[in-house]
Amino acid sequence: MERYTAYIGEPSFDVAHLAHLELLTPKFEESIRFFVDVLGMTLTDLEGDSAYLRGWDDYAHHTLKLTAASKPALGHFAFRTTSRTALERRVALLERSGLGLGWTDGDRGHGPAYAFRLPGGHTGEILYEVEWYQPTPETRPALKNQASRFPGRGSNVRRLDHINILSADVREDRKFFQELLGLRLTEIIVFDDNSEKGAWVTPNIKGYEVAITEDQLRGHGRFHHVCYAVDTREEVLRAADICLEHGVFIETGPHKHAIQQTMFLYVYEPGGHRIEIGCPGARLVVAPDWQPIVWSQAERQKGQAWGLRTIASFHTYGTPPIEE
Amino acid sequence: MERYTAYIGEPSFDVAHLAHLELLTPKFEESIRFFVDVLGMTLTDLEGDSAYLRGWDDYAHHTLKLTAASKPALGHFAFRTTSRTALERRVALLERSGLGLGWTDGDRGHGPAYAFRLPGGHTGEILYEVEWYQPTPETRPALKNQASRFPGRGSNVRRLDHINILSADVREDRKFFQELLGLRLTEIIVFDDNSEKGAWVTPNIKGYEVAITEDQLRGHGRFHHVCYAVDTREEVLRAADICLEHGVFIETGPHKHAIQQTMFLYVYEPGGHRIEIGCPGARLVVAPDWQPIVWSQAERQKGQAWGLRTIASFHTYGTPPIEE
Amino acid sequence: MERYTAYIGEPSFDVAHLAHLELLTPKFEESIRFFVDVLGMTLTDLEGDSAYLRGWDDYAHHTLKLTAASKPALGHFAFRTTSRTALERRVALLERSGLGLGWTDGDRGHGPAYAFRLPGGHTGEILYEVEWYQPTPETRPALKNQASRFPGRGSNVRRLDHINILSADVREDRKFFQELLGLRLTEIIVFDDNSEKGAWVTPNIKGYEVAITEDQLRGHGRFHHVCYAVDTREEVLRAADICLEHGVFIETGPHKHAIQQTMFLYVYEPGGHRIEIGCPGARLVVAPDWQPIVWSQAERQKGQAWGLRTIASFHTYGTPPIEE
Amino acid sequence: MERYTAYIGEPSFDVAHLAHLELLTPKFEESIRFFVDVLGMTLTDLEGDSAYLRGWDDYAHHTLKLTAASKPALGHFAFRTTSRTALERRVALLERSGLGLGWTDGDRGHGPAYAFRLPGGHTGEILYEVEWYQPTPETRPALKNQASRFPGRGSNVRRLDHINILSADVREDRKFFQELLGLRLTEIIVFDDNSEKGAWVTPNIKGYEVAITEDQLRGHGRFHHVCYAVDTREEVLRAADICLEHGVFIETGPHKHAIQQTMFLYVYEPGGHRIEIGCPGARLVVAPDWQPIVWSQAERQKGQAWGLRTIASFHTYGTPPIEE
Repeated sequence: MERYTAYIGEPSFDVAHLAHLELLTPKFEESIRFFVDVLGMTLTDLEGDSAYLRGWDDYAHHTLKLTAASKPALGHFAFRTTSRTALERRVALLERSGLGLGWTDGDRGHGPAYAFRLPGGHTGEILYEVEWYQPTPETRPALKNQASRFPGRGSNVRRLDHINILSADVREDRKFFQELLGLRLTEIIVFDDNSEKGAWVTPNIKGYEVAITEDQLRGHGRFHHVCYAVDTREEVLRAADICLEHGVFIETGPHKHAIQQTMFLYVYEPGGHRIEIGCPGARLVVAPDWQPIVWSQAERQKGQAWGLRTIASFHTYGTPPIEE
Repeated sequence: MERYTAYIGEPSFDVAHLAHLELLTPKFEESIRFFVDVLGMTLTDLEGDSAYLRGWDDYAHHTLKLTAASKPALGHFAFRTTSRTALERRVALLERSGLGLGWTDGDRGHGPAYAFRLPGGHTGEILYEVEWYQPTPETRPALKNQASRFPGRGSNVRRLDHINILSADVREDRKFFQELLGLRLTEIIVFDDNSEKGAWVTPNIKGYEVAITEDQLRGHGRFHHVCYAVDTREEVLRAADICLEHGVFIETGPHKHAIQQTMFLYVYEPGGHRIEIGCPGARLVVAPDWQPIVWSQAERQKGQAWGLRTIASFHTYGTPPIEE
Repeated sequence: MERYTAYIGEPSFDVAHLAHLELLTPKFEESIRFFVDVLGMTLTDLEGDSAYLRGWDDYAHHTLKLTAASKPALGHFAFRTTSRTALERRVALLERSGLGLGWTDGDRGHGPAYAFRLPGGHTGEILYEVEWYQPTPETRPALKNQASRFPGRGSNVRRLDHINILSADVREDRKFFQELLGLRLTEIIVFDDNSEKGAWVTPNIKGYEVAITEDQLRGHGRFHHVCYAVDTREEVLRAADICLEHGVFIETGPHKHAIQQTMFLYVYEPGGHRIEIGCPGARLVVAPDWQPIVWSQAERQKGQAWGLRTIASFHTYGTPPIEE
Repeated sequence: MERYTAYIGEPSFDVAHLAHLELLTPKFEESIRFFVDVLGMTLTDLEGDSAYLRGWDDYAHHTLKLTAASKPALGHFAFRTTSRTALERRVALLERSGLGLGWTDGDRGHGPAYAFRLPGGHTGEILYEVEWYQPTPETRPALKNQASRFPGRGSNVRRLDHINILSADVREDRKFFQELLGLRLTEIIVFDDNSEKGAWVTPNIKGYEVAITEDQLRGHGRFHHVCYAVDTREEVLRAADICLEHGVFIETGPHKHAIQQTMFLYVYEPGGHRIEIGCPGARLVVAPDWQPIVWSQAERQKGQAWGLRTIASFHTYGTPPIEE
């Protein structure tokens, strides 16, 4: 099996997991309704132009912040570190890199965060202090090892799984995640001309928490999608049934990705963002010496796992949209 | 939510994951057939009195070693570290503890391993060098990010999930895993008299890779079960159908544990060991500051998640069996 | 395979399917909330002391009528015939039997019905004219071959599946269904003393639409349970999760019946009735010359399909309850 | 909801179900291996150039007969009647129609059959006497209400579900099934010019057992596909995984049909026939007065249920293939 050995260092455990993301939406109320009714998320806070939401097994105050804005865009995404010490280590590296933007005071649900800008223009944050979600009488789970009650509503998404950003230079953004944040590269697309078309990185044993794919329209800081996870592939199919009933636009799927083997369903929420309801399943990359899987140009032309052609808009549609 | 704060230190990332276990069996051939035909595992090596097996997504040469013996027992279990350096750190700690047994030369599929004895009498190993499984033409997967072909045979277990050992002193064994191996405690049963009845520990973001439960017969070094994971709860039900067809004894289940919420099915393999086909599902403990869930005596008397009474043999049957 | 040949005549196709049932409940409002929130049914009509409900794929105005009363009991159940002619044929037979009670004017959702009394005391009806459910804007399905929108709420039960009545004389009630209504017997329990302990009968190719099981307390006209069907066994498990979250009492399950192989979950609704959320799955009895499966006393002592003991209350608890 | 009222008579119950089909294959051995290893069927008989196979819950000796031939084609398909009397009634009608071909002596697994030719050129049979499958020690099920053991092999298809024939004149062939065999029309595609593009008919409460779709190449007696059913949509996905591992060509799917809502996966077996592994699920058409669902030209241009475009080869590829 061909492996990509461009960058594999001593494993780092400074970043624990993807913590949350902020999406700007021009249809604030409709977007909230989509995440609550169609995805089955819980609204945990609402302040001014921002709404805070989470899946039923997300332990934090929120994993999604929606902010009213004139057009859809990624506000920022954030990682949580494994400790305060780890946070300090990463901030020091970011400051030296010239890509650091400095500390913010935090937000609802978390403490001080250090902001940074990716080479491709996206804004990220790294933080340690978070507020755990406190169930209300309506959301208190029957089993106390669960973050909150299973909602029994819409798609019942369980937790934030990953984000996918569009990049005009996949290699530069990939190296940022590996070198400055210490994430591991698990899979990558490298074309015959040695250009990188997509990269999947993770801070833990999940197969990926960030995907970086090529923006064929060469946008700056554009967002591809966020994925919320359900437990089974059947629940992805059920989410498709539910989206159909709600008149939600299904861009592609349900089908299985060849890369990472995630069962996927891509839809557009009212604000314009692409949302994935996905099932990465029991796939875990536990090997500490995992060598990245390298997908060639020829291999990528085969389409998805069971043969579905990758839809053209997958390489061009992002938020904010660009006139083609 | 009540939490157990007896031991929570700075997180350690020295241990990567549970690597394998060796089971001694008095019915060598029948045990092999069980794991191959009923569980759907692959026999990767056979030498003398030992057979080496793995699930279709286990990346290593083997996760289960079966060795012919006069009675059923746990030979040993093994963890893989995240690096050579991490291995050295842990070996130094083990040597100082007086519980170290010294280095072995390794075995089929892995390099040198450092052996140790738990307070409760079980033998463990820790190692870094492993041989990755190399698919044969018959087991080569269609997707190259998969360890081997999905077998389409029996229960199609995916990977080694966890082991459960019986202990006459749960607290002592639990502390061993936390203090000497750096695992995290995620859930625990503490009775009104402060005695610990069960503890679940993990080296990564899976909810647990080792469970330690009380041996009500006060045996020494006895084994409770090993769990191989499937992707969905439905596959656990299907495994029950398959065990029924094969005349395999079902001890209890399928049902859902309250603790860790694993969907379980417990059966006995021909050699006498209790085997779980389980679905931990998408449950991941990603929070670096997870506080252990403490289950009280009263809570444990409620039975399993959906109300099934915990079967009496669960507290007494282990391998080797003890005459009651 | 042993078969029961006591009664197999020329197949009759006069009865199409189980149409609805009426349950009397002492907790009218709570019962409605249970069927709407926990089961995911739709309230289609409400008049006086009666509420009318249906599952999302039930084509009729209702399949369940709830009526406020001082204690829980079966009001009546009803079959729909395959034609007006078939209805006339059956009414003629019922009148001759002396068990006919005469015509009623019908009810919300259906036209004239002919009532009858079973030997065991239960009241049944037979009818042909029904009102099809007309979706509202809120319940209109995206696919027009579906009765109404998939609700995405609670257990999302699809359709009425079967009822189970308790009988002091299973043989007498069984013969009534076969001889007067023309249903087929598909499975039966016959003990060593030739007493019948349970019988499963059907008017179509589903395995059963009525089960008659022995009332060990020798009650008169008591009700055992009604089953609403979901599509998969996993959905039965999910229903158990949802009942757990709602504090609904789970009597037994989820598990798989040996007889008919239905995946079952038995819970009690607020009014006291036992309700099954079940998955008969793709099991169809298409053979026109199917010989009834006869389960012996010894076979029944083995418990359910995967070994679960049949719970004692299964033979004694019914509605109205009897003081033991 | 628009309904098609061209032909709805008094319901007939003369035909019980689709009994079997014969496929001619130029790759006899490979075809057998496909149905046994990939689909998980059992070979029940082998004589000369013909092999007889069945799914694990098919009660009959066989539901599929494979016969070696120079090119792939449908040999014939057969219905079983609900009684001998019903058979006689239908033979009389067929004889009067001029489409009857006369009696044959039967075959392995069934008695005398009356053959007929469809307007579109396909050969069918109707029969009553069949041989029930007798399990061997290897195929004896643990539960005696099951036709044979669950195999735990490949896709584990349960039973023959339906066939789809290509027709140059859908209306003529549809009328044949309704008028001469007494099947019910449940769904139909009628274009703006009043031409019928597809029709789905059934003899029982399954949504369909025969589909007739337009042959855009105007072939004679061509075969579109046979569907074997599994219990869940997830099993259709798993079948796709298994086909991928076996290098089986996947034409389209897995996805959900808008018409009849069947979860589908279409693949080609080695002999060239299109095979569906499908899940019609719990969808049953129990209403005796079901009005056929009429799909318009505009509606059909929307693609499948979740938006997948209908693949072009679906309207042209059949067996025997035609050079375009």
